[in-house]
Amino acid sequence: MSLTLVIGNKNYSSWSLRAWLVMELSGAAYDEVRIPLYTPDSRARLRQHSPTGKVPVLKTPDGVIWDSLAIAEYMAENYAKAELWPTDASARAMARSLCAEMHSGFSALRNHLPMDLKRRQRLATMPAEAENDIKRVCSLWAECRERFGAHGPFLFGRASIADAFYAPVATRLKSYSVSLPPEADAYVDAIYSWPAFQHWHEEALKEKEVIS
Amino acid sequence: MSLTLVIGNKNYSSWSLRAWLVMELSGAAYDEVRIPLYTPDSRARLRQHSPTGKVPVLKTPDGVIWDSLAIAEYMAENYAKAELWPTDASARAMARSLCAEMHSGFSALRNHLPMDLKRRQRLATMPAEAENDIKRVCSLWAECRERFGAHGPFLFGRASIADAFYAPVATRLKSYSVSLPPEADAYVDAIYSWPAFQHWHEEALKEKEVIS
Repeated sequence: MSLTLVIGNKNYSSWSLRAWLVMELSGAAYDEVRIPLYTPDSRARLRQHSPTGKVPVLKTPDGVIWDSLAIAEYMAENYAKAELWPTDASARAMARSLCAEMHSGFSALRNHLPMDLKRRQRLATMPAEAENDIKRVCSLWAECRERFGAHGPFLFGRASIADAFYAPVATRLKSYSVSLPPEADAYVDAIYSWPAFQHWHEEALKEKEVIS
Repeated sequence: MSLTLVIGNKNYSSWSLRAWLVMELSGAAYDEVRIPLYTPDSRARLRQHSPTGKVPVLKTPDGVIWDSLAIAEYMAENYAKAELWPTDASARAMARSLCAEMHSGFSALRNHLPMDLKRRQRLATMPAEAENDIKRVCSLWAECRERFGAHGPFLFGRASIADAFYAPVATRLKSYSVSLPPEADAYVDAIYSWPAFQHWHEEALKEKEVIS
C-alpha cells in the first residue's frame, strides 16, 4: 500500500506529531513530506497536498485523509495486527473518548502552551483555564494508568493511538516546566523514552525555522 | 447489551442530536435520559452521568463513552451489520475525514449560528468566517454527493455517521434561512425527510425551555 504522510515543522506541529506516531506504531512503510509552516510559500505548498490547507494529511490508495483522528482510524483498520487501539473493549472505549476529547478540547492548553520542543521555560503566569486543562489531563492519565496500565509504561500499557494523541501534551508539560503529580511525571518520562518519539524529537531539534 | 444515551435539550444540543442519530441508525435498543441544559440543577444532574459534565454520553457495558465521535466508532464496531460507516473504503476514508473536520472545526458556524430548531430567521449580518464555513460545508457535501451519493439522498447514498454529524448543520442552514446552491438545498431536504430526524425534530418543537 502506497502511503505518504504530509507534515509540518517537527518542532511546532503537534497534530503532525500525532499522525506520525500513529504511522510509526502501525509498522507501515510510508513516505514523509515535510512542509515548513509560517514561510512565504507554505500556504501554496500545503494547498498542493491538503484540501483544507492544513497538516497532517495522509495520501492513501483510498484517497487523501485530512485529519489526524481519521488517519488514526484508517491505520487502525488497515493495520489491524499492529493493534493501534487497545484490544480490551473497555480500554478501547476509554481510549477513543480520550482521543476525541483531545481532538476537540483543551483549547486553553493548546493556545497558551503551544508545542515548542526546543523550549525549556515556564510561562510567566499560567492562565487558570490552562491550569484546569492540565488538571483534567493529569486525572485522565492517572485513571488510564491505574485501570489499564499494568503491562507497560503507556496509558493503556502498550503504546497506542492514545499515547500518540497525548505525546504533544507531555512535551508541553516539559517545555513549560509545569509541576506535576508523580504519576504524570512518570508518564511524561515514558513519552520521552519512547524510541519513535525520540527520533522525531532529534529531528525537531535540528530544524532551523523559528516562529516568534 | 444495555445502553443508555444521555442527551441535552433536543432543540439546542447539536452534539446530542449527532449521537442520537447514530443510535437510531444502529438499530440498537437503548434508553434515553434527557437533561435540560441551562437550568439551575443542570450542572449537578450532568455530573451524575458525565465525567466532563457535557452531553452526549453513552453508558455501555464497556464503560461510559463521553464524546459523540467515540460513541459513533463504538456503535460502528459493535453493530457492524448496520454499516454505520460507508462500506466502500474510499467513501469510508472520506466520511471519517468529514466527521473529524466537523468534530474539531467550523467554529464560526457553530458560534454564530447555534442550533435552534424552532428558529426561522436570518442573521442580521452573516460574519465572513461563518460564510467561509458554509462554503466549505457546501463544497464537501457536493463532492460526497457527486462521488458517492448515487444510491440514495444522503452524503454517501445510504444514511451514515456522516449524515448524523452534518444534520445539525443542515438545520442551521434552514433555521437561519441561508441561501444555498441547489445541491445543498436538496441535501437539507433529505435531512428534513429522514424519519429519525423528523422524530427528534417533533420532540424538539414540544420542548418548553427557552434560552436567550
